[in-house]
Amino acid sequence: MRFGPTIIAQAEALAALTERPGMLARSYLTPQHRRAGEQIRAWMREAGMQADFDALGNVVGRYAGSKPGAPMVMTGSHMDTVVNAGKYDGIFGVLAPIACVAALHREGKRLAFPIEVVAFGDEEGVRFGTSMMGSKALSGHFDDAVLDSRDAQGVALRDALRDFGGDAAAIAGLRRRPEQIRVYVETHIEQGPVLLQEGLPVGVVTAIAGSSRVRVQVRGEEGHAGTVPMALRHDALAAASEMVLALERHCRATDGRVVGTVGKLAVADGGAINVIPGLVEFTVDMRSGDDATRRRAVAETQAMFRELAGARGVALEWTPLQELGAAPCDASEQESLARAIEAHGIAVRRLPSGAGHDAMQFSGVAPIAMLFVRCGNGGISHSPRETLAAEDAEVATAVLLRYLEGLA
Amino acid sequence: MRFGPTIIAQAEALAALTERPGMLARSYLTPQHRRAGEQIRAWMREAGMQADFDALGNVVGRYAGSKPGAPMVMTGSHMDTVVNAGKYDGIFGVLAPIACVAALHREGKRLAFPIEVVAFGDEEGVRFGTSMMGSKALSGHFDDAVLDSRDAQGVALRDALRDFGGDAAAIAGLRRRPEQIRVYVETHIEQGPVLLQEGLPVGVVTAIAGSSRVRVQVRGEEGHAGTVPMALRHDALAAASEMVLALERHCRATDGRVVGTVGKLAVADGGAINVIPGLVEFTVDMRSGDDATRRRAVAETQAMFRELAGARGVALEWTPLQELGAAPCDASEQESLARAIEAHGIAVRRLPSGAGHDAMQFSGVAPIAMLFVRCGNGGISHSPRETLAAEDAEVATAVLLRYLEGLA
Repeated sequence: MRFGPTIIAQAEALAALTERPGMLARSYLTPQHRRAGEQIRAWMREAGMQADFDALGNVVGRYAGSKPGAPMVMTGSHMDTVVNAGKYDGIFGVLAPIACVAALHREGKRLAFPIEVVAFGDEEGVRFGTSMMGSKALSGHFDDAVLDSRDAQGVALRDALRDFGGDAAAIAGLRRRPEQIRVYVETHIEQGPVLLQEGLPVGVVTAIAGSSRVRVQVRGEEGHAGTVPMALRHDALAAASEMVLALERHCRATDGRVVGTVGKLAVADGGAINVIPGLVEFTVDMRSGDDATRRRAVAETQAMFRELAGARGVALEWTPLQELGAAPCDASEQESLARAIEAHGIAVRRLPSGAGHDAMQFSGVAPIAMLFVRCGNGGISHSPRETLAAEDAEVATAVLLRYLEGLA
Repeated sequence: MRFGPTIIAQAEALAALTERPGMLARSYLTPQHRRAGEQIRAWMREAGMQADFDALGNVVGRYAGSKPGAPMVMTGSHMDTVVNAGKYDGIFGVLAPIACVAALHREGKRLAFPIEVVAFGDEEGVRFGTSMMGSKALSGHFDDAVLDSRDAQGVALRDALRDFGGDAAAIAGLRRRPEQIRVYVETHIEQGPVLLQEGLPVGVVTAIAGSSRVRVQVRGEEGHAGTVPMALRHDALAAASEMVLALERHCRATDGRVVGTVGKLAVADGGAINVIPGLVEFTVDMRSGDDATRRRAVAETQAMFRELAGARGVALEWTPLQELGAAPCDASEQESLARAIEAHGIAVRRLPSGAGHDAMQFSGVAPIAMLFVRCGNGGISHSPRETLAAEDAEVATAVLLRYLEGLA
């Protein structure tokens, strides 16, 4: 194997740079961010790139192309992690392209276009609650207002950035103009079980799903658990339970086009063992690669909930919280990735990304493309139980390299 | 009306004796307890009774009988309240028998047996977390260990009782010997909607329901709300929702013989809007007037839950928390109450009490009997929205008086 074992070893080394003993947690503008960035910069330089931190704490490596003035291929992912993270989420999308450039560099090869590999300093948004700041800055979506965000200790992002050696005044200048970018391509672990279930090491992402988030409140009638007969109850939790299951049933029937989740559900004031719940709140998260499909599913869900609420004589409040459009991957880049996969004798599986990724920030700015690599262990991510096989890292990197060479 | 308006006015007057402005809250061994007890004592004395506080802060009034040595009829309920209480829960069962005795006294009548009317100082257990202390002491179930209980301010019950003027050393002597009690009869608002739904002012309680409480834990698989396809999920909340509904369905099918409630349900750590719940805990409270029926229903529920968990590939933990046997009301006393109701031209409705009452402490010590009076406003209780119509207070008191006279 040319790439896999090295990448796994690198991911292992970076996982040691953590804020919390016993688990991986590396957030934005911390000493661990600094040390991870320095290590990545060193690897980039070894791979023949010019590399350094930018004004926002991203590490950017550049491998010049052979054709003057050709727009660059930008690729990368994030180097921050959630709390108690896995070792591959984000960082694999940084290490794989570094390995590709290193291979080109070893052979003394340059492609027609420059390659920029970016390790974004913030994607998860753990510390300041503002996610994808790095990719927002480079794609022109950065909002200066976030500089006033504070972490749990009350430290303002603006001050933390200055102490890190960044430069808030220079953020606007980080923006790449659309004509500078030929494509933004990101490799990432799937963070789900689809490729694992189908026995495939890689897959082509069709779109980063759009999402709708809703807060639902069900108001029934509180009552004594012993004195109110079953037939006379207006149990808010039983009504909410029907809604949880209706959402699940509805999404199951879409054959993979829509997923829906109730992630939070709480009885008001925690409830009491001997009180029929009178008030329940829960969240709904619905996603689809296609916006129209998602919107229709959301509307249908709302209608179902109303009907269920009506049948039980409980009141329903439906409060939309957030609406995020899907980011479709470029059709021709999908084809290029597919050809690179086929060249390795692997069946091409196209699948949407249910999770958000830095790539989505470049949607509408440049063509975007994403290559998924299989996640082991049931597809679990955002967990120390996340795994990536060296063999799969190998294949994904080789596919990425072939894709890059194919573009040239 | 002979009784109703007076009783409603008395309840109103007592509701002004509260620890918290703007709501009714009167707990054990407080100045409000003292003042309420003094007022009740005064009404008892006006009604011709010998009355005073006992060593535990209960107020006991005695109306002597005509037949020397006859065992007494004990009746009463509690004068403490929950926080933000209604005006009739408990206290109606004190005021109604005082009104009965007052009526006998006005006519110069004595029944063959003595009547003891008790206003228990603690039933709700709000202050010290130990409920039904008054009825436990009189029935012989008082446990001295509770004297070491402390309230939220750290005051020990033992000290609060001494400051109130009580006498911990004399508690054991409060116990009535079984042969002293002919029957313990309690009148109480239903705290439920059955009589209201059926248009009846009163009903005969068949039993104070026994209850089983269980903690259920459902362990599925946490996952990303966007990346795990519906078919591959092991959503602990969806599984728990099925269980909530299965319990409801099962209890509905028992035609009133069993009620079941999930009062608390929580996703571990509160859950997150974009995470498939991996761990959910909830409580089950099941009650029935018949112990065997309840135990069978609990076992069937556990079996259903196991089946549902198995079908979804989630793990189930079933932890029994508490088991409390039913307190059946004496069959012949039920008959006597029924005859008193019929004598008022009212259809006899028999119903179990889903809530616990002081009467249950006398179960096994003496025959117990309970008369329910209709609760207005949907049957709501433990709430300022609790209502009792003067007409219903009238009927219930008249029925109680007729019952007492019938015993003589």
